[in-house]
Amino acid sequence: MRWSELETEPCPVARAMSVIGDRWTVLLLRDALRGVTRFEEFHRRLGCSRAIVSERLAHLVERSILVREPYELHPPRHDYRLTESGRALGPLLMTMSNWAETWLPGTSAYRVRRIHKTCGHAFQPVIQCSECGEPVAPGDVEHVDPRARLRTPAQKPA
Amino acid sequence: MRWSELETEPCPVARAMSVIGDRWTVLLLRDALRGVTRFEEFHRRLGCSRAIVSERLAHLVERSILVREPYELHPPRHDYRLTESGRALGPLLMTMSNWAETWLPGTSAYRVRRIHKTCGHAFQPVIQCSECGEPVAPGDVEHVDPRARLRTPAQKPA
Repeated sequence: MRWSELETEPCPVARAMSVIGDRWTVLLLRDALRGVTRFEEFHRRLGCSRAIVSERLAHLVERSILVREPYELHPPRHDYRLTESGRALGPLLMTMSNWAETWLPGTSAYRVRRIHKTCGHAFQPVIQCSECGEPVAPGDVEHVDPRARLRTPAQKPA
Repeated sequence: MRWSELETEPCPVARAMSVIGDRWTVLLLRDALRGVTRFEEFHRRLGCSRAIVSERLAHLVERSILVREPYELHPPRHDYRLTESGRALGPLLMTMSNWAETWLPGTSAYRVRRIHKTCGHAFQPVIQCSECGEPVAPGDVEHVDPRARLRTPAQKPA
């Protein structure tokens, strides 16, 4: 498999990585999901070169994660807004953040708080089964791969 | 911010990217979560160079996501098993896969099925609020950043 083939890979994890498989891109998305829309603000928060910010924003526009919209005509200026598929990456970044908060605890007290607007509480994202509504623990999942017929190792019965 | 500083970044998304911010690494993790433990099988499934597989496996061992265990003494052979923090990446990869299945539909009918062992059904992962137990939609979250005091744009009331 070559990287140029990732977009058309049958595996959805590989396809996702064709869009977000770059560290700067994910940090841009993090900031977009927190409300940043302007080039200068992305640049200030990432602290990397303008060329990197520009290239990654163009990539996200090209893949329909962001849309570039004019907000001023004279002089022409644009901002970058999340599309529906971009906003749908929110749960992914929340899950990523939650994993790192648990398993790579930071040295500072800094922690972004997530508020669930519907109930008003600071919350942790929990993965729930769409069928029975119960939380899904990592060991509770069996992957059935139609190509390889490879399954996760059987768990001992409780 | 330089990449060498990512591990100690206060933002958990950035810390997560210091571990999984590489496409081959994520594809290795995908296969480890589906039960692969042997170098030769990782190599066969990824179809990249042995050097890439070897370097990425060493990185995951160094970051305590995988542990290298002997399974044969003469000749010495090892396999790679997920640690608890590695297994805890399952929900992240499920969420990634689910996003791509929805927003980057593939051209083939290939789709890994996830079975929730507890209820026995093929399922989709749904993000649930730890406090009220309701599903969390992308627009339902407000991020309160203690540094920037930047909030996500207010949603119009329904």
